[in-house]
Amino acid sequence: MTQTTALPPPKAGAGVLDLLRAFRADEVAADRYAADRLAKATAVEPRLKAFEYLPIDVTRRPGPLSGIPVGIKDIIATADMPTTNGSPIYQGHVPAADAWVVERLRNLGATIFGKTVSTEFAWRHPGPTVNPWNPDHTPGGSSSGSAAAVAAGLVPLALGTQTLGSVIRPAAFNGIVGLKPSFGAIPRIGVHPLSPSLDHVGFFARRVDDVALALALTAGASDGDRHGRPLPAFAVDLERGLEPLGKPRIGIVRFEKWSRAEPGQQRAFDAAIARARDAGAVLEELELAAFDRENWPAINTILSSEGALIFADLVARFPDRTSDQLKSQVERGKALAALDYLKAKAIQEKWRTAFATEISGYDALLTLPAFGEAPRGLHATGDAEYCAPWTFLGVPAVTLPAGFGNNGLLLGIQLVARYREDKRLLQVAKWFEAALGFDPGMPVIAS
Amino acid sequence: MTQTTALPPPKAGAGVLDLLRAFRADEVAADRYAADRLAKATAVEPRLKAFEYLPIDVTRRPGPLSGIPVGIKDIIATADMPTTNGSPIYQGHVPAADAWVVERLRNLGATIFGKTVSTEFAWRHPGPTVNPWNPDHTPGGSSSGSAAAVAAGLVPLALGTQTLGSVIRPAAFNGIVGLKPSFGAIPRIGVHPLSPSLDHVGFFARRVDDVALALALTAGASDGDRHGRPLPAFAVDLERGLEPLGKPRIGIVRFEKWSRAEPGQQRAFDAAIARARDAGAVLEELELAAFDRENWPAINTILSSEGALIFADLVARFPDRTSDQLKSQVERGKALAALDYLKAKAIQEKWRTAFATEISGYDALLTLPAFGEAPRGLHATGDAEYCAPWTFLGVPAVTLPAGFGNNGLLLGIQLVARYREDKRLLQVAKWFEAALGFDPGMPVIAS
Repeated sequence: MTQTTALPPPKAGAGVLDLLRAFRADEVAADRYAADRLAKATAVEPRLKAFEYLPIDVTRRPGPLSGIPVGIKDIIATADMPTTNGSPIYQGHVPAADAWVVERLRNLGATIFGKTVSTEFAWRHPGPTVNPWNPDHTPGGSSSGSAAAVAAGLVPLALGTQTLGSVIRPAAFNGIVGLKPSFGAIPRIGVHPLSPSLDHVGFFARRVDDVALALALTAGASDGDRHGRPLPAFAVDLERGLEPLGKPRIGIVRFEKWSRAEPGQQRAFDAAIARARDAGAVLEELELAAFDRENWPAINTILSSEGALIFADLVARFPDRTSDQLKSQVERGKALAALDYLKAKAIQEKWRTAFATEISGYDALLTLPAFGEAPRGLHATGDAEYCAPWTFLGVPAVTLPAGFGNNGLLLGIQLVARYREDKRLLQVAKWFEAALGFDPGMPVIAS
Repeated sequence: MTQTTALPPPKAGAGVLDLLRAFRADEVAADRYAADRLAKATAVEPRLKAFEYLPIDVTRRPGPLSGIPVGIKDIIATADMPTTNGSPIYQGHVPAADAWVVERLRNLGATIFGKTVSTEFAWRHPGPTVNPWNPDHTPGGSSSGSAAAVAAGLVPLALGTQTLGSVIRPAAFNGIVGLKPSFGAIPRIGVHPLSPSLDHVGFFARRVDDVALALALTAGASDGDRHGRPLPAFAVDLERGLEPLGKPRIGIVRFEKWSRAEPGQQRAFDAAIARARDAGAVLEELELAAFDRENWPAINTILSSEGALIFADLVARFPDRTSDQLKSQVERGKALAALDYLKAKAIQEKWRTAFATEISGYDALLTLPAFGEAPRGLHATGDAEYCAPWTFLGVPAVTLPAGFGNNGLLLGIQLVARYREDKRLLQVAKWFEAALGFDPGMPVIAS
């Protein structure tokens, strides 16, 4: 009988590519990794509250993502686990079929690792999840559980959705990487809608290469989602990750709301700019003042109108099981005229066309992901004003951690590129990741 | 000096394929055909009033449509001729650039043969065009001039647009073939919008093969029209036309409104069914009652809302140069709520998905193009209730002449197929064209 010298199991903070490399070297570690994470999650869950449902079956499956546990935001349908949509109305509800993206992940060999807490229907009423860096603070939302679970090292990858800022903001508040791909890159069949003109599926992970791999493997098209427009295909090398990009040209976008950002966030942002300049990037300030004025009212009009269509019957039928936040959103939407909605859509179309021209000459834009650290309290999930412009445009956006703030919570930066230039954006983000050289480590809750 | 024995010039009622065949045999005839049609149009125009603007330059250009004069509906931009949009506000207005489809036709070698009369902005206020079969009757609309010009033999091909029934209805009223392709088949850049969720570019010609060739050559995609979805490519043989289809399976759709159709139209329709059965087609009655109830209110809500966005400022600025029809359409749209609009759009999405299933097992549906012959008078252009369902769905629809009515005006049938099955639809239409064996000849106005 031969004895294999087992390598040590991958560390909690390992990323997807790290794990896949380790798994190739050690099949035993691969087989037991998801079960190990399930044990860890079971231990941490009473404090973190990141999951609506932990998986029962974590058997490894074949495929390029074999052995990788992926957390699924609980507005995304799973046929083998309940999907509550963050609402008491859907307690125990098990959908008839997997969402398109869940089916894709299963086919890639990923382990569907439970359902992560979402705010109610991905709108504002928060769930119980705490920020793993400080349980008195919000993890952000609406993809609260996915962000917290990745930050706490329970899963190396998780699915979220973003309609205003629900991927970028919680990723920044948790000190991890968040990617909102181009609008239409991932079909939304089986994802509970909030505003179909704005809803995006996105990813949380610890490294830029990991979200790049996830997007490269899952981007697609389906006749069931008429808003879909497939991305140009791209590959991520499993050893080296995304191919590197030369020194990028970056437009810095602060917007007028910059004055409202926390001083610590402002300092972290300017420090990131200084590091990028030292590493050779060209960075120039960009105004985009007209866009700044127009996008926020327009996106809220679109969201309220489309949200009212989706939720009006529900809040009428279940007044005791829907939140005040959802009810007031429906009321706002019902008060809007068709012309208000169509004007907002026309502004969206105008800027979708104009934006590519506005930022020609830059590889990406650099901006804030939020006004600062995750706010104290669990009653609200923070502000989306720095995320919404890019959701409105449907352009790809990524956040990565850039430093700690005064409260010991994380601060990030956000990078944005032209529509369907997701690969370029991720190459720029990888360049920044190296230039900043910042690793927040693991939060205390995970130990 | 050699002498060529010139063939007789092609007859007025020749179709596009007939002409291309004749032109290949006789270059002289090809060179002079457009000029000959211009002379004819100049003679007929005082009675027919089909053109806003007759071409000045009819020089032949190289390309697959070389020598073919094409009439352009006057809401479609031309850089070398005025584009009035059927409105006094745009008198003498010359756009900076050709519409996408006009540029395409020029590149194919077609002769852009003037601008044909449209109702005001392709809505209800009629232009001066008369029905070439009887000048006391409407030619239908909104593509009035294009349909009348083809029927009178002034051009073998013309462009129209359809938002409710503006290609199919005038084609039927003029005894010619009209094609409304699948939604998004032809980019609408440079076409004045009426309702972007519903606006289609289409064709008028004398034969099914001719509209098939026009579609095969002009279908395309452009980043400038986000609603575009390119058709599967197909070819039309210049000698034999579309390849024939076997005996088709047809669903007969009368709808509840059948009882309101004129007795002559009912008889012509049932006679067409009898002829198709004799020729071997399988035809079965189909109800579609729920669809019949829901589509008309929904399409009108969409059109009023989107139309109000487009025309609200215009009717406010130019109260003396906009019609009551346009003003009341804007008022209807302004009174609608965002939820009304979004509910109508959701009904549209629902039926776009359900329709393919509803008609599985059939190659096409057979229905009416209108309630009967072109109505008397020029104050209105007729009813779109039999055309709007297919515009609403975005599925391809074609009409062809089937007989004369009691007033000596034309009656047609309409065929409809699944979304993006334009080629199949045209093959079925070609089969019906042969089975009916009906040629209305030329109207007196053309002689």
